Amino acid sequence: MVHNTFVSNISPEAYPMVGGDGPHSYAKNSIYQEAIVNGSKGMIAAGIRKTLDLKSLRLDTSSTFKIADLGCSTGPNTFIAMQNIIEAIELIKYQDDCECEHDNPSGLEFQVFFNDHSNNDFNTLFKSVPLSKKYFATGVPGSFHGRLFPESSLHVAHTSNALPWLSKIPKEITNSNSPAWNRGHILCSGFEKEVAEAYSAQFKNDIESFLNARAQELVPGGLLLLLTPTIRDGIPMFSTPEGTNFDYLGSCLYDLANMGLIAEEKVDSFNVPMYYPFLGELMGHIKRNKNFSIEIMNTFTHPLVHMVYSAEFWASLSRAAFGGLVGQHFGYQFVDRIFNYYSTKLAENMSSICDGKTQDKIELFVLLRRN
Amino acid sequence: MVHNTFVSNISPEAYPMVGGDGPHSYAKNSIYQEAIVNGSKGMIAAGIRKTLDLKSLRLDTSSTFKIADLGCSTGPNTFIAMQNIIEAIELIKYQDDCECEHDNPSGLEFQVFFNDHSNNDFNTLFKSVPLSKKYFATGVPGSFHGRLFPESSLHVAHTSNALPWLSKIPKEITNSNSPAWNRGHILCSGFEKEVAEAYSAQFKNDIESFLNARAQELVPGGLLLLLTPTIRDGIPMFSTPEGTNFDYLGSCLYDLANMGLIAEEKVDSFNVPMYYPFLGELMGHIKRNKNFSIEIMNTFTHPLVHMVYSAEFWASLSRAAFGGLVGQHFGYQFVDRIFNYYSTKLAENMSSICDGKTQDKIELFVLLRRN
Repeated sequence: MVHNTFVSNISPEAYPMVGGDGPHSYAKNSIYQEAIVNGSKGMIAAGIRKTLDLKSLRLDTSSTFKIADLGCSTGPNTFIAMQNIIEAIELIKYQDDCECEHDNPSGLEFQVFFNDHSNNDFNTLFKSVPLSKKYFATGVPGSFHGRLFPESSLHVAHTSNALPWLSKIPKEITNSNSPAWNRGHILCSGFEKEVAEAYSAQFKNDIESFLNARAQELVPGGLLLLLTPTIRDGIPMFSTPEGTNFDYLGSCLYDLANMGLIAEEKVDSFNVPMYYPFLGELMGHIKRNKNFSIEIMNTFTHPLVHMVYSAEFWASLSRAAFGGLVGQHFGYQFVDRIFNYYSTKLAENMSSICDGKTQDKIELFVLLRRN
Repeated sequence: MVHNTFVSNISPEAYPMVGGDGPHSYAKNSIYQEAIVNGSKGMIAAGIRKTLDLKSLRLDTSSTFKIADLGCSTGPNTFIAMQNIIEAIELIKYQDDCECEHDNPSGLEFQVFFNDHSNNDFNTLFKSVPLSKKYFATGVPGSFHGRLFPESSLHVAHTSNALPWLSKIPKEITNSNSPAWNRGHILCSGFEKEVAEAYSAQFKNDIESFLNARAQELVPGGLLLLLTPTIRDGIPMFSTPEGTNFDYLGSCLYDLANMGLIAEEKVDSFNVPMYYPFLGELMGHIKRNKNFSIEIMNTFTHPLVHMVYSAEFWASLSRAAFGGLVGQHFGYQFVDRIFNYYSTKLAENMSSICDGKTQDKIELFVLLRRN
């Protein structure tokens, strides 16, 4: 029964960004992610211009052009990203109209689907959808590792900064009897081969599920736009700025355990369900999926790579992304204390985090076309 | 520009039901509304069977059957309503499949759009979407008095218990210099002709906007299912159980003003943006809209009409529906005190509210087919 294919057996562990619009919210602390959205505007516009064939999508005046943002969080980045895509499509439409007036697609309407886990703060998202939007807005709750949309119902799917989030923490790394037990670290730092293999296998599984779900949801000729961080092949996570940052967060948690604020066992069992793949690793997974043709696969440097960050900036960014996860694991009453301590300790070590390692993270832009 | 038609100039005043799933929430205090949803299941199933022609909708295996619930609030009623509609369509599909195996539409997938104002508690809604659902769930924020969906993009639209909510409070009734000033009452009680005319005009405007928006959004052959309370022609609101109930709530507010808890001017300026139309009045508005053919127009009695209500039940129901509105106007810190007082006063007068007036409210079920 085709209509049952979306009843996924995935039980996503959902870790939304910090909701609302308060001082610690994702909405107020996501300019690092916003830089990717802004920085990719030109690439996306050129890519859409080059690869999107409106006529082959059989859109006419009664049709709707449907766009999804997968892992949208609460804004404002998702609104910027969707606006950029719509402007690019409008531009093709305008040019096509000029070339071919008797086949005028100016009646095209846009419907945008904002997707994130069901415990994302959709209330904040919906209240902040821009009044000037030129589309019909909808929210879609659920994990992008499974089906979210009917078959062949989307024209463009986009995701930015969300692919490193895993559908779950690999089981082995939480098992104290396993060689992959990740005690002492809070994600795949790269120190232990077994841990890295467990994370890598989970990422492989997740990206395959992601691509297969999108292959079902996109119309033939539809586009999948991926923007995601990767690590230079062979460089372990612990020697990248992000890895060093995560290791500091981990060491802060152990400090606080030593001070008696939180239990050491709680720190041992804390893991961030996130994996930064190697560039070649991710490219391999994408190339193996035969439902798509690879139209563009570009690497680029994060637009803020040369910015001098303050410890407060990093701490705010981390808290907006991981505050919910930390609160869920340790108790929300400890979140202030944990991130204040982390911010202070980070301030003492900022130079060693950023120094000379800024080229180890490589942003990847991929534009896939559904066959 | 067709794609701009949805940029509505409506600035809806949005009064959502009480969110969350706490003791005062709509989710926990809406069995009165649920009775309409359950009570209409048979009518809806028979109506869909009689009027929905799946073949004329040109659905094939790659198509999605799209259903919207307008004014859905937070559940569970909306989930029941959508499930009932899907079951009715599945039944047609099954029978059609048997009749016509070579044109098998068994690949039909369902997409359900849950709509309510952007300050509805979509977070609670999304977290409580049943795991067993057989549809792709989406949320659509916005006022149903304007466009919410692309042109010809819905197959069935449904609304239950939501049409009496107006897009705004009629201006005249809040103007102390107008003959329609509604001092002393909190909605259209029916005592003053000018007030009734102002409310009636606003309702006419709103139902026309509602029908015109749906006419654009539904595909030809698509269905619009309306379930809504009306009042027997010529019976003033104040002599119905609902009217008496609202008048008690109003008198409680004046009592509390006299006790000094809230300002009298605040009570004078408090109005509920709700209008219960006369049966003939609403039927007239529907008949005048030529975009639809009227397939079914049935009246029925509320399934709980003979239930003996306790004051606590009524007060809980009222608080779930109007607690947000009362809090917004008077301050959320007064909501407990206001509804506790109201519940106590109501207990002293329950017999006079319900006695012999139960036939004055007439539920209307209308099934319209988009021409």
